[in-house]
Amino acid sequence: MYVGIDVGGTNLKAGLVDEQGRLLAVRKVPLGMFQGEEFFARRLAELAAQTAHDGGVAPETLEHIGIGVPGTTEGGLVLFTCNIPMKNVPLAKLVNRYLDVPVMLGNDADCAAVGEYFCGAGRGVSDFVVVTLGTGVGGGLILGGKLRPGSELGHIVTHRGGDLCNCGRRGCWERYASASGLIRLTREKMDAAPDSLLWELSEKGERVEGRTAFLAAERGDETAKEVCRIYVEELACGVIDLINLLRPEIVSLGGGVSGAPEDLLLTPLRTLVDRECYASHGGQLARITKAELGNDAGMIGAALLGKAI
Amino acid sequence: MYVGIDVGGTNLKAGLVDEQGRLLAVRKVPLGMFQGEEFFARRLAELAAQTAHDGGVAPETLEHIGIGVPGTTEGGLVLFTCNIPMKNVPLAKLVNRYLDVPVMLGNDADCAAVGEYFCGAGRGVSDFVVVTLGTGVGGGLILGGKLRPGSELGHIVTHRGGDLCNCGRRGCWERYASASGLIRLTREKMDAAPDSLLWELSEKGERVEGRTAFLAAERGDETAKEVCRIYVEELACGVIDLINLLRPEIVSLGGGVSGAPEDLLLTPLRTLVDRECYASHGGQLARITKAELGNDAGMIGAALLGKAI
Repeated sequence: MYVGIDVGGTNLKAGLVDEQGRLLAVRKVPLGMFQGEEFFARRLAELAAQTAHDGGVAPETLEHIGIGVPGTTEGGLVLFTCNIPMKNVPLAKLVNRYLDVPVMLGNDADCAAVGEYFCGAGRGVSDFVVVTLGTGVGGGLILGGKLRPGSELGHIVTHRGGDLCNCGRRGCWERYASASGLIRLTREKMDAAPDSLLWELSEKGERVEGRTAFLAAERGDETAKEVCRIYVEELACGVIDLINLLRPEIVSLGGGVSGAPEDLLLTPLRTLVDRECYASHGGQLARITKAELGNDAGMIGAALLGKAI
Repeated sequence: MYVGIDVGGTNLKAGLVDEQGRLLAVRKVPLGMFQGEEFFARRLAELAAQTAHDGGVAPETLEHIGIGVPGTTEGGLVLFTCNIPMKNVPLAKLVNRYLDVPVMLGNDADCAAVGEYFCGAGRGVSDFVVVTLGTGVGGGLILGGKLRPGSELGHIVTHRGGDLCNCGRRGCWERYASASGLIRLTREKMDAAPDSLLWELSEKGERVEGRTAFLAAERGDETAKEVCRIYVEELACGVIDLINLLRPEIVSLGGGVSGAPEDLLLTPLRTLVDRECYASHGGQLARITKAELGNDAGMIGAALLGKAI
């Protein structure tokens, strides 16, 4: 039995998971204000213990606890996180002061990839990539059945000299293939098309969201169709890069944008990938699918980290 | 004992290699005209046998023969090659008709990466990338001590919508970071600088080579310095992509361009990598070095393929 905790931007979500990857109990609590690493570690330990109890398991009998954090980890150290002020914090050791069970740390996107690999879209293969399309582009790599920790899928440059990215580079894939990139593109094309349905669907441009273009395209709006087409091309560019480099068997899309209608996202993406990837000259083509576990992927993957490392 | 054969554009080069990766005998013969797969397989078998004899080893006692081909292989099949008309040829089986020793096939760039990993620039680490800067950009990935076969390092897009690549995509890294890309860039900048030393060093533009810009830059030519600067930026772009995705411990440069003066190539490349790669926010930075085995890498790596798979 394992407990996985997903440290999100607003919540901590913990799940009790068994050997087969089945979720036996879940707890969700607000992240709250950060009151120091000691306090944070105690909350994590308590949350893990409570979640184990919920599932009728004595906490000290857990095989391990996995914690997925939005940042970089190394061994039991959190090197840094994006939304919580932690830098070089020995989080595993701190949690162990309150609960004497092995603690594994991982990046949250890596954990999501592990979850999908064992329990979702990546079941049964050996080489698997998850691409998460949210505020940024994240994801994780499973190669030869093992996690390659710390990959930054969104921070490969597809547009040299392009938009400035938060990471400091210019033209990162994330700037174009994320939900934020899609929203920016939608706004740009709307401005040049005052009659587009996009205006109506976004409260006169007040609420442009990732799905706005897909909704309008479904209703036949030409500007929206163009937005979707350009967006899928940007997405395909990085997906094909990953396939050319790593030759995974499956690439799965997760995150908010992956909920878009199949005929506007996955189908044209598959066409581009099949046409442009290097393996089109010979060899096995990768399958492009949708991730299956939604927001639970990170929590389940955190629990199963030990199987993937 | 192993024999590795590197199938090059003009020569077949075979080496007898021992467990420790030491090269005990080498034979080089012209590739000659392709007279069918049967004939080709027999030549490979004979070459392997002769090379073993040269080193005082009975061919039938070889642990295996490794063959590196410029194309895509899968198991004992050559799926296709670039310079020899082979498509879906069971080359390993054909060679076995003439020499009853296990035959392993690999892509030539992958073999070079294996060679550098065991006997050159990648010794002693676990995660290692070779980038070969020649007519194209090739190379190979060793992750967790094992080869990731079939990676196409040069065919990640850094300039979306850019120059058309032989692979069918536009804007592949190879178009900008290869020796060919460097030569194209040199010509372009020369045309705008009639007083540049580049003209003198290239026989009035008749013989622009990969090294021309480096030679002129060493002698202080400003246009050449600009060419070198831009080229290194293009090179850095893909190198940083690889590091952000894979977090290797070492990235080594091979191929003709890697012979450029350190202060014009490796030093500015390291500066860009250290500044721009994601790990600059925390975590281990990759080391950038020069490959060590030169043209022997592919042959040695072909011999040692069995250790890397």
